[in-house]
Parts: sequence; C-alpha cells; structure tokens
Amino acid sequence: MTETQLKLKDHYQLAIIGCGPAGMAAALNAQIRRLDYVLIGKEPCSPKMIKAPKVENFLGFPEIKGEELRQRFLKHLEQMKIEIVPWKITNVYKGPPFTLLGGDYTTTADAVILAIGVSPQNLFFGETKLLGRGVGYCATCDGPLYANKTVAIIAYNKEGESEANYLADIAEHVIYIPYYNEIGKLDPRIEIKKGSVKSLNGNYKLEDLVLENEKIALDGVFIVRDNLPSEQLMPELKLSANAIEVNHNLETNIPGLFAAGDCTGQPYQLLKAAGEGATATLQAIKYLESLGKKA
Amino acid sequence: MTETQLKLKDHYQLAIIGCGPAGMAAALNAQIRRLDYVLIGKEPCSPKMIKAPKVENFLGFPEIKGEELRQRFLKHLEQMKIEIVPWKITNVYKGPPFTLLGGDYTTTADAVILAIGVSPQNLFFGETKLLGRGVGYCATCDGPLYANKTVAIIAYNKEGESEANYLADIAEHVIYIPYYNEIGKLDPRIEIKKGSVKSLNGNYKLEDLVLENEKIALDGVFIVRDNLPSEQLMPELKLSANAIEVNHNLETNIPGLFAAGDCTGQPYQLLKAAGEGATATLQAIKYLESLGKKA
Repeated sequence: MTETQLKLKDHYQLAIIGCGPAGMAAALNAQIRRLDYVLIGKEPCSPKMIKAPKVENFLGFPEIKGEELRQRFLKHLEQMKIEIVPWKITNVYKGPPFTLLGGDYTTTADAVILAIGVSPQNLFFGETKLLGRGVGYCATCDGPLYANKTVAIIAYNKEGESEANYLADIAEHVIYIPYYNEIGKLDPRIEIKKGSVKSLNGNYKLEDLVLENEKIALDGVFIVRDNLPSEQLMPELKLSANAIEVNHNLETNIPGLFAAGDCTGQPYQLLKAAGEGATATLQAIKYLESLGKKA
Repeated sequence: MTETQLKLKDHYQLAIIGCGPAGMAAALNAQIRRLDYVLIGKEPCSPKMIKAPKVENFLGFPEIKGEELRQRFLKHLEQMKIEIVPWKITNVYKGPPFTLLGGDYTTTADAVILAIGVSPQNLFFGETKLLGRGVGYCATCDGPLYANKTVAIIAYNKEGESEANYLADIAEHVIYIPYYNEIGKLDPRIEIKKGSVKSLNGNYKLEDLVLENEKIALDGVFIVRDNLPSEQLMPELKLSANAIEVNHNLETNIPGLFAAGDCTGQPYQLLKAAGEGATATLQAIKYLESLGKKA
C-alpha cells in the first residue's frame, strides 16, 4: 500500500472506522464532546452517494443529488475542522484497549465504532475456507510470503494496482484480475486477465483459481474490495443475517465496540446511517465514562 | 377541544403519531413508498427545536439555528406534498387493526409508528394513582361527567384554554392553573390560580389538589401537556427506563407498533430521531408485507 505518511497517535479514546454518513455523524458528536478520537476512512467516503441521481428522504434536503449531499457532508466536517485519516484497516483486535492494524500502521483505542458499510461484492466460492491459507486481503502485510511464487490480485478498484505493483517486485509471477474499467499504470511484469472468477480451490491451502473456463495454478490470491467483510476485520464479532448484530444502543457483542450504519443491516439509508453514527458516539461516551476514561 | 374539521379517513395502512423529526422522516419514506398513511401531529412539531440557539450535529447543516432547521424540515414536507393532520390523540388500542382515538375523532391503521417525543414535564404526585378516578387528559372526552362540579385544568400550553372554556359551559366551577405565561382569552367564569401544584390527593377518587400551601377541593382535574405520557396513550406498551422499549428494528412489544425518536430513549438528538423515523417506516412496510397488506 502506498499510503502517504499517516498522522496517527498511539492511542485514542475512540476510533471511528469508516467515513460514510455514519462515521461522519459519529465524528461530529465526538468533536462536539471533545473526545480524543480519530476518524478513519478513505475518500470518497460513501461511493454509493456519488452514484445516487437523487436523494429525496434526507430530512431537510428535498430532492438533492447524492454527490451534492456528499459534498455538504464533507463541508460540514471541514467547517468543524474534522480530519479524515486515509487509512485502510485490516484487523481489529479486542482489548482493552482495542488494537487497530493496517499496512505498516497500528494504533489503540478504548472504544471503537465500526461504520464500515456493506460490500455489495459477494464473497467468492472458497474464499472463507481458504482465508489465511493462501487467500488474503492485504498484500502489504502478507506479500513477502510469496517471494518467487505465483500470486493473483482480484481488484474491485484502483487500489489493487499499487498492491500489484508492490507484489511485482517480490513474486515470480503476478496476475491481475480487475473487476472495474479504466486500469491505470501497472508494472509491465504483471499479467492482466479479464473475466469472472468462478472459484478459489484447494484442500489445505489454495491451489488454483478458476477464471471463466480456465484453471490457473496459484500460491496466493489477494482480494481488494471497497469494503472489507466485517467477519474478516474482526472474527469474534457476532453477525446476524450478514450484518453486525447490535441492540438499540448500537452495542455489539463485544464491550466497547459499537456499530452504526449499513453494516448493522437494512434499511440501507443515509438518514438511518447518520442517526446511528450520532447515537453510537454518545453510547461510546457512556461506555468510556463507565471505565472512568472520560472526564 | 376546538379542533377544526379534520381530514381523516376510516382506515390507513400506517398511522404516524407525532410530527417532530422522527415523524417527519417516517412520513418522507411513507410518501416515497406510496403507503396509504397519515401523519398526525400538532404544530409547532418539535417545540424544542424552536428554542435551540444552534444545532451543530445535524449532518449537512453546519451550525444552524434550531428554528431555521425546523423550517427546512417543514419545507421538505411541503415540497413532497405531505400534510400534517392537526389531531391530538389520547388513546391507541391494539388491534388488528389499531384504533386511534382523540376528541370526537377516531380512525384505524394496520401499523402505527409512535414518534411522540418525551415530555420534560414530570408527572404530578398522585397523578398515576388517580388516573381515570378524577384525573384525565382530555376534557372534550370526559368533560360531561363533571356537570355542575368543580374542575381544575393544569395547562402547560394555550391548548388548555379552549379546554377550560369548553368546561366553563358544563361545570359549576372551573379553576385554571397555567404553567406558562401570556394567557389568552378565558371565559370570565373561569378562576385563574397561579403557582406550583404539589400533589393530587384522594383515596379512591380525586378529592383535592394542593397548590403551593392551599388545598383546593375538586371533583376532577385535567392536565394539558405538550406530550402525552406514552403509558397513558397505550397502557400495554412495554417501557424501560421511562422510554418505550424497542429493539434495533424499532419494534415495540406489540406487533405492528413501532416507535422512533426521543420516545425510544436517549440520546435525545435530532439526527437519531430522524434516522429512526426513516427506519421505522421501512420496518412497518415489512410488517405490512408479512400481513399481505402491502402490494
């Protein structure tokens, strides 16, 4: 991952993961309540909003374009001097405190709000079974394991390109399978293959990938999605119908860990997400107070 | 109650009770999803907003006056051609269908969203014990019982005045105890008494009221608040810590009855209320679909 130097402290009272409407609304309350917090996410913060031709049900904004509303949200953050740290987190370990990991960076937090949205991108056949056995989500983390081996990257966005370029220096052979158009600058050693991935196969570890009708022998595959599936981020998290299970106070099964927005399940609506984000911060403050962590 | 003629049908798929941010957001989704619904509430729809000097955490509106935001909300409704039926409901009976009652009016609905807010006005000592035994909330409903008797009205707003004027024609003696300033036009037969009500007393039925240090013998008392306590609206409703108990889907303990906004408990925040309203309608639609009531 070619992240620019991130401004991260070693510890926060609250980490908000995700900068869609839920994460943004959570940050507004964190800022107002003067928490020592960090808002983590990557632009564009809610790519779904960009594509929404019109939004009719965000109270206060009759019939507005999704992108215009998104800009209003970002401007609100800017006026409140709220920064978004552009960090892709791959793991959250429960504490206390929680440890957040991603690429070369790490931090800790007393409470965490997951506002990670949902991925419309289904898991591949074999993905869950082979996770950690040749299947991964972070080339920067695991790439060195594949020195002189054959690796594929299945990428839903341009982020996969820097992962692939990084791997081109390490692996013997890198195959790039893009699920998007307009591919950018890739190292000439990378082989691009287009088509639909049918399955990831192997018994104890990944052996091959089937692309359309072609079977490709592989040592490793990295999948780059817009959102990381929450079960991969934090395996202890209790899910229900593919969503993070929360109660009305947005508490998950892990004390100090809250979830807000689309990741807590339907309805997938901006106003619901924002409302839950606002609530999650205030519930997190109650939790911090119960620990004696918030004056 | 001197309500103007209300435009009410006999039956709706969904009744939304309350026109604060939760009720308004619920109505937006009901309108978009083309439900046969009614939005019931009395202006000013969220009196609390009028008094908020600034709101900083309604995502998309950096630092706005409460009243300005309220006007934006109302304008949104207007643009969507959503009407508010100015009806004060005093009872909801579970069905199916639910029956809504208030003054001379009644209607039914397959599903109901309670978005009734919270009353900052505490119950009086003795109020719950003597409810229905001389203590009531609706003079229009129960006034005739007090022909030639002595009745008091404790009023938190001007609405009490029309109740009092109505009672002046029926009762022998009407005492008006205002908890607000700028009293309007009262029938000259009404006696105004100012001060703080200490208790409502009686064994099997109301006998007297203590106002400051004065004990006033009474046959009945009507209390006119901005919000009706939810336990009076619907006694079967399960409460928890004085709020209506809901799960993450905003379902109450009664099938088909949902609650949204401040009435579901803290935090009392506009964005939380609006988000819950939006969600409640979509959950109500799922419920209607399960009944086969929504095509």
